[in-house]
Amino acid sequence: MSQPFKKAVILGVGLLGGSLGQALKQRKLASTVWGWGRDPKKLALARRLGALDRGTTSLAEACAGADLIVLATPITAFRGLLKEVSGLAPSSCLVTDVGSVKGSLVADWEKDSWPLTFVPSHPMAGSEKTGVAAARPSLFEGSVCITTPTPRTPRPALLRIEKLWKDVGATVVRLGAAEHDRKIGALSHLPHAAAFALVRAAARDIRGKDWGLAGNGFRDCTRVAASDAGLWADILLANRRSLSAAMKAYRGELESIERFLKSNDRGRLTAYLEKAARLRRLMNKA
Amino acid sequence: MSQPFKKAVILGVGLLGGSLGQALKQRKLASTVWGWGRDPKKLALARRLGALDRGTTSLAEACAGADLIVLATPITAFRGLLKEVSGLAPSSCLVTDVGSVKGSLVADWEKDSWPLTFVPSHPMAGSEKTGVAAARPSLFEGSVCITTPTPRTPRPALLRIEKLWKDVGATVVRLGAAEHDRKIGALSHLPHAAAFALVRAAARDIRGKDWGLAGNGFRDCTRVAASDAGLWADILLANRRSLSAAMKAYRGELESIERFLKSNDRGRLTAYLEKAARLRRLMNKA
Repeated sequence: MSQPFKKAVILGVGLLGGSLGQALKQRKLASTVWGWGRDPKKLALARRLGALDRGTTSLAEACAGADLIVLATPITAFRGLLKEVSGLAPSSCLVTDVGSVKGSLVADWEKDSWPLTFVPSHPMAGSEKTGVAAARPSLFEGSVCITTPTPRTPRPALLRIEKLWKDVGATVVRLGAAEHDRKIGALSHLPHAAAFALVRAAARDIRGKDWGLAGNGFRDCTRVAASDAGLWADILLANRRSLSAAMKAYRGELESIERFLKSNDRGRLTAYLEKAARLRRLMNKA
Repeated sequence: MSQPFKKAVILGVGLLGGSLGQALKQRKLASTVWGWGRDPKKLALARRLGALDRGTTSLAEACAGADLIVLATPITAFRGLLKEVSGLAPSSCLVTDVGSVKGSLVADWEKDSWPLTFVPSHPMAGSEKTGVAAARPSLFEGSVCITTPTPRTPRPALLRIEKLWKDVGATVVRLGAAEHDRKIGALSHLPHAAAFALVRAAARDIRGKDWGLAGNGFRDCTRVAASDAGLWADILLANRRSLSAAMKAYRGELESIERFLKSNDRGRLTAYLEKAARLRRLMNKA
């Protein structure tokens, strides 16, 4: 069986890029997997961990003859990399990314007329961990990957990239870029902001050894607050418009609860919590 | 070796009461474990699950000859039960509870002069599940149990109850009742309110099958929102003063993030998130 890609290149070999490299190699989805990054040590580690066949710090060497390029650096680098890669890779090369914000990147891409074919993707996998040391080939299994094509995205390219994500174990969902940012703002960026803020709020009353009083509830609610701060600052800022609206709505929900507490209204508070509980329990069954 | 208690009685055999019964029996901490409740079927189930030796719907029968009574019903019933139990149990009987709010109950207890000895406890174990079917004898292992004695709490009674929690696997921390409510307000009640509100906020943008887009981050942040709504309405209301202050502070933290988003201030946003991440990572190590 011929492999879907000849030279797959991963730009940025961290948790997501490294896991994708491992999955591509393990499932024989590319003849060779290259990795590009700034730090030769990290590239060597990625090779040892089975994420790459070859690592290079030269973007030109990485892009030469590539038929698949995956942007897996922090999202702030995507725009510049897309431009550079356009001048270095063959025009037949497919480019995708793993970014969790889509709107402005897709809009910029549409404005310019770059030679490559770009299919925006957002594999919703990962954790609060970062770096290739946390990579695992099964990371995408059972996850959802969102693609955000535009009317100008060539259909064969879209289908090939979607097949790639299915091949590593994800379910693919297609959304508009703005719709993606609104929905993922509510389901991913808002919970992250909420978790960081929750730790800071608790820190007003909790010091030193009192953190030991935190039970599983607090730990679960704030697990994602252990994520990389710089990475998440970039993500939250990249989706600031949708996220700000979601955060304002969230504060409104908190104020509803505060109102029921103030009026000691057990009936309305129970009904409010029950609606949330019902929705959340459906998720346990899914 | 003689057992610490002769007749231990658990009032309300749900997740916490049932787990305590199982632990008491498995570790031979009482000669017999009785359970009291309104529903004979639930008591029969608790017996089958190894949580009780005897179940009864008669509070008088349950309390007769008891030397340990544990209040494990929903907290709204505690006040009434304490009063009733005071007239039914021997005056030498020790009473404790598993309630997650302490201030008003302890204040009421101090005001009246009931014959029994009451040592308020808050074992911080449990989950979003309820009912004896979810009980397990290991529930308290590795957990923290807070006791909130007052200057009037007899020291031998305090030590016996604290030994009980240690015997089932918990680490005991002693706090004042008001301090308990403030700290647990921040570390448990606030995250619960935040999780319920987060589901409701997301529900503004997410409908039907789109809930399938929720990743592990959202699932973790909102796991406790699947908890029993009535139970949590009672807990949040019982600690409404401390919780309202914590929720207001939390909204202030969210507004800080919103300000950094509005001013596109990457430096301050990163510093803000980093402080939360550092605190949260310490918790992973603990």
